[in-house]
Amino acid sequence: MKGFFRVQTPKQLLEKLNRFGPLPSEVVSLEDALHRILAEDILSPINLPEFPRSTVDGFALKAKDTYGASEKNPALLQVVGEIPMGQLSSIHLKDGQAVKIATGGMIPEGADGVEMVEYTEWVDAQTIHVFKPISPLENVIQVGEDIKEGEIVLKKGRPIRPQESGLLAGIGWTKVRVFLKPKVGIISSGDEIVPVEQKPKPGEVRDINRYTISSMVREAGGIPIFLGIARDCFHEIKEKIESGLRQSDMVVITGGSSVGTLDLVGEVFQSFHGTEILGHGISIRPGKPTLLAEIERKPLLGLPGHPVSAMVIFHLFGKALLNILSGVSEETGPKRIGKAKAGRNIPSVAGREDYVRVKLEERDGTLWAYPVFGKSGAIAHLAYADALLKIGIDEEGLAEGEEAEVIFI
Amino acid sequence: MKGFFRVQTPKQLLEKLNRFGPLPSEVVSLEDALHRILAEDILSPINLPEFPRSTVDGFALKAKDTYGASEKNPALLQVVGEIPMGQLSSIHLKDGQAVKIATGGMIPEGADGVEMVEYTEWVDAQTIHVFKPISPLENVIQVGEDIKEGEIVLKKGRPIRPQESGLLAGIGWTKVRVFLKPKVGIISSGDEIVPVEQKPKPGEVRDINRYTISSMVREAGGIPIFLGIARDCFHEIKEKIESGLRQSDMVVITGGSSVGTLDLVGEVFQSFHGTEILGHGISIRPGKPTLLAEIERKPLLGLPGHPVSAMVIFHLFGKALLNILSGVSEETGPKRIGKAKAGRNIPSVAGREDYVRVKLEERDGTLWAYPVFGKSGAIAHLAYADALLKIGIDEEGLAEGEEAEVIFI
Repeated sequence: MKGFFRVQTPKQLLEKLNRFGPLPSEVVSLEDALHRILAEDILSPINLPEFPRSTVDGFALKAKDTYGASEKNPALLQVVGEIPMGQLSSIHLKDGQAVKIATGGMIPEGADGVEMVEYTEWVDAQTIHVFKPISPLENVIQVGEDIKEGEIVLKKGRPIRPQESGLLAGIGWTKVRVFLKPKVGIISSGDEIVPVEQKPKPGEVRDINRYTISSMVREAGGIPIFLGIARDCFHEIKEKIESGLRQSDMVVITGGSSVGTLDLVGEVFQSFHGTEILGHGISIRPGKPTLLAEIERKPLLGLPGHPVSAMVIFHLFGKALLNILSGVSEETGPKRIGKAKAGRNIPSVAGREDYVRVKLEERDGTLWAYPVFGKSGAIAHLAYADALLKIGIDEEGLAEGEEAEVIFI
Repeated sequence: MKGFFRVQTPKQLLEKLNRFGPLPSEVVSLEDALHRILAEDILSPINLPEFPRSTVDGFALKAKDTYGASEKNPALLQVVGEIPMGQLSSIHLKDGQAVKIATGGMIPEGADGVEMVEYTEWVDAQTIHVFKPISPLENVIQVGEDIKEGEIVLKKGRPIRPQESGLLAGIGWTKVRVFLKPKVGIISSGDEIVPVEQKPKPGEVRDINRYTISSMVREAGGIPIFLGIARDCFHEIKEKIESGLRQSDMVVITGGSSVGTLDLVGEVFQSFHGTEILGHGISIRPGKPTLLAEIERKPLLGLPGHPVSAMVIFHLFGKALLNILSGVSEETGPKRIGKAKAGRNIPSVAGREDYVRVKLEERDGTLWAYPVFGKSGAIAHLAYADALLKIGIDEEGLAEGEEAEVIFI
């Protein structure tokens, strides 16, 4: 298969992901909806507030009774009661009258504004002085001013964060239609890979990718399904991929440490009926040999076996695919991107995007990024990185103090 | 209780949280350890790699056989076989011999370096030319070079992200001792608050805080336990707090929309034997009336009933408390903090920290923060914020384009 495909830029490959679309939806209770993705626009069934409310603690009154009031010449009003919280008041305010009200209290009939308590003073048990005029509707939130009945309050494709769950609660939305969580079949391949609980013999190494990829799938809102370790054997790889296509919405296979392994995976991809190879080789470091295919309308991602490369590529392409399958609209997705300054000179080669594993340190509110180095195959440095620092395809490295984009990992 | 306590700065209150400490620990499988916090230092039981490995694809050989080699004057070596992945090779290399090896392959006896395939050429089926000299140990990762047996690879208090789970897998750590997840009792209070599934009568509003606080507890690694809605009544609040102290490690109560409600909650806090009030009033906006107490060695947080204020305070103090209870060490916690530029002038008042709800927009790799406004009591804007933009206690606002810290929410 080698040579058939040109190395593509990360951007070119990302654009090809648009052929995939969101999964079907299901209805869950609001309590279980955290981090799920809305599968429908939410139209408010009610006005909010449903009654005119005070936005301050003070006295509800007729604004015109305060006109001309000042420190020297206060208005005198008769206090005819107090608005109880959570209840409809029977009070109907007449000229020259006021009623005590707390923040959130319902404005009674006849009142058109609220004077803040700070600008009043009790004269006796039934009378107050008001020192400052207010305009009609001052310190009042009117019916529907927050949300209007029939208004779209949240759009399809929006992730439900704590704040969205609060808004849904506010309009009485107890059940929510959300996209299904994508199931992701995960295969580790390579003759040298053994399960973690097994003591490796000389030449063997433990299966790290199973855990890093599963964890990243969970973080991206998917359900990981581990399908086992395949030897570097066409039929064993094919059988596991078939099993993945049956059980899941997307398959990720990591390919041993040897460069040749992903070529074998590519041959297996090709052997399915109607396979479309979307990419084989990206101008990126680490992760150049990455494979992407569409089989039975599902995405299959072949990642380099090196745990660091596999993580970087999954962050960039695996998560993008999961976002598409789970119906996330780009505009409302969570921001995992920030800026950091290079803590030292970081060299790079133009012509490929470079993702450097960095440790972040915060000083005086600025994030500083320090590269975490490790030889190819080393894993200790894997865990010490907090972010991936991006060096653009046309850049030749960063100078100390220069700012660049980081993806928090 | 009013007047007994001086308004404190956020920093002063945060310092008082140190009196609390982490919960006991439990052992979970590596698969279930994602986002849990390590309750012990992890010492590697093995050297990594456990055998000398090649870091490139090429030929293992004796470095001295390449000395003096060049394009014009290549060294000639006899290829005596290939190192199989995942197996111990029986090959013992003699002078003038080489063996084909893939990245990750085990260096055979007698070899001390690996020549990259790029600098070689097959002469015939058993012979190669080598065009570049290598030094001993070049392209080899030695036993224990990545991780040494007995070395601390991860420290107690470290959150297990995908990368940490990969490292633990690499050293064969299948079960992990982690701190218990904090159980957080949540109480909503206020005469006007009704459950979400109930249609509010005039003057009533739905219980939003139950959902926002529960979701934030989940995001911070805790287990929310909703204890119900308490009316503005001493005994009802006390009963719910008692129930919270029995069932959970921390209690959060949100207090209606009225300013007076938190004073009542404060009185209930005081009524327990040995209560210590740690704070009542913070120089912060929103969230000034916040209450913090220690009862039966557990933290109790009283939050303003306004959903936006409750969220801001929970982000700053509730999450800090959860981090302490779940044993997170500050140095290794995930970074939720970034920088953004003000998209417009944002006024503020010196003498208090201001947390402005902002929507983030990314342009040319820079995050721009636009304030999301809403009247007190309004909730629609609650869901449209992506971050809290911090305006320091000594600052009087931000000018358009000025950079400030943001907390992603």
